[in-house]
Amino acid sequence: MVNRRSSTKDTIVDAAILLFNIKGFDGTSIRDIAKKAKVNPANISYYFEGKQGLLEKCFIQFFEAYIEFIEEEVNLLKNDRPDYCMKRAVYKILAFQSKNHHLSRFVWREVSIDSQIVREITSSYLMKERYLYKKLIEAIVPDHYLESNIGYLIIQLRSLMTMPFLNSQYLREVWNLFPQENYFVEKYYEKIDEWIETNIINQPRKINIPI
Amino acid sequence: MVNRRSSTKDTIVDAAILLFNIKGFDGTSIRDIAKKAKVNPANISYYFEGKQGLLEKCFIQFFEAYIEFIEEEVNLLKNDRPDYCMKRAVYKILAFQSKNHHLSRFVWREVSIDSQIVREITSSYLMKERYLYKKLIEAIVPDHYLESNIGYLIIQLRSLMTMPFLNSQYLREVWNLFPQENYFVEKYYEKIDEWIETNIINQPRKINIPI
Repeated sequence: MVNRRSSTKDTIVDAAILLFNIKGFDGTSIRDIAKKAKVNPANISYYFEGKQGLLEKCFIQFFEAYIEFIEEEVNLLKNDRPDYCMKRAVYKILAFQSKNHHLSRFVWREVSIDSQIVREITSSYLMKERYLYKKLIEAIVPDHYLESNIGYLIIQLRSLMTMPFLNSQYLREVWNLFPQENYFVEKYYEKIDEWIETNIINQPRKINIPI
Repeated sequence: MVNRRSSTKDTIVDAAILLFNIKGFDGTSIRDIAKKAKVNPANISYYFEGKQGLLEKCFIQFFEAYIEFIEEEVNLLKNDRPDYCMKRAVYKILAFQSKNHHLSRFVWREVSIDSQIVREITSSYLMKERYLYKKLIEAIVPDHYLESNIGYLIIQLRSLMTMPFLNSQYLREVWNLFPQENYFVEKYYEKIDEWIETNIINQPRKINIPI
């Protein structure tokens, strides 16, 4: 009974993710989701309190996993090289987004809208993301150079990591790249690895050299 | 008479941009736009053939200007240093997005959806964007190193340039940065300038050194 309930819930969530992604949140009705998931619309209200509840479920599913990848590596900082921790977090997030490419695309698009739920996501998960990325970067470059720059570094890193999954159609049609494939994750990870090397580990420090 | 017509059209477009941005395209009705623009809903059908026509108008207004900034600089390549051309294009696009922040946010969000109009935008404007950025980068680094990397460079540059305007709420609430302000444009331009210096002009070339 428990299994059956959990599998119905998962089927509903999977159908919702697919439809939210393709048709947008507002363009998708409970009826569409019920039809796709082959369940009675009443089930969706029962399990999720409607579309808004499903949206919350999608956000939470995504951001719990996303934050967990960074947090795991912050916890490893005491035992391992900080650059390794940073890079593993990046790799895991890229692989996770690739594997869950429908969900990722939908979530990154949806968090660009002003709404009550997005404000809640921002003040919980994205504030935590900020805190955790700062921990990782400060462990790599423990100096005063970073103070005014760390915000821009994190903004840049985030945009490099999320953009291919938000704009998978652009990558496919303009560059013939497929963010949902393992090959892409490997190749793109190399690029971000280079970015971390150049911009964080060996970042250009502004030093006043006396002449 | 012409002025009055043109100003009514502009009022409708401005109202549509604002509402599409805040409530999303699917969440906005012709009635909402008419109310905001203080016009009769029939006017919107008359001028734009409905919501879809307004969406097209927004895309065209954005991408015509956007492509023009890059094209101008490609045309200047014969008279000026290529790195200057590249950087001016970047600066102009940042300033344009900042000034038109509602439109930019809406457009970048909307192009992440699969739809007929987005496929048309991709195959026209975004293919042209690819061509023009390649011209600029190849003028700076005319060597074989770039061949397999130029796609990733352009993808990275684009994501750095667009992300703050798509995620203006994130920047505001998490980092206290305001992408619609001139101050942000100046400061963020510096960051992209650094990125261009490090990743394109002085890019790390993989050279086999014989030992």
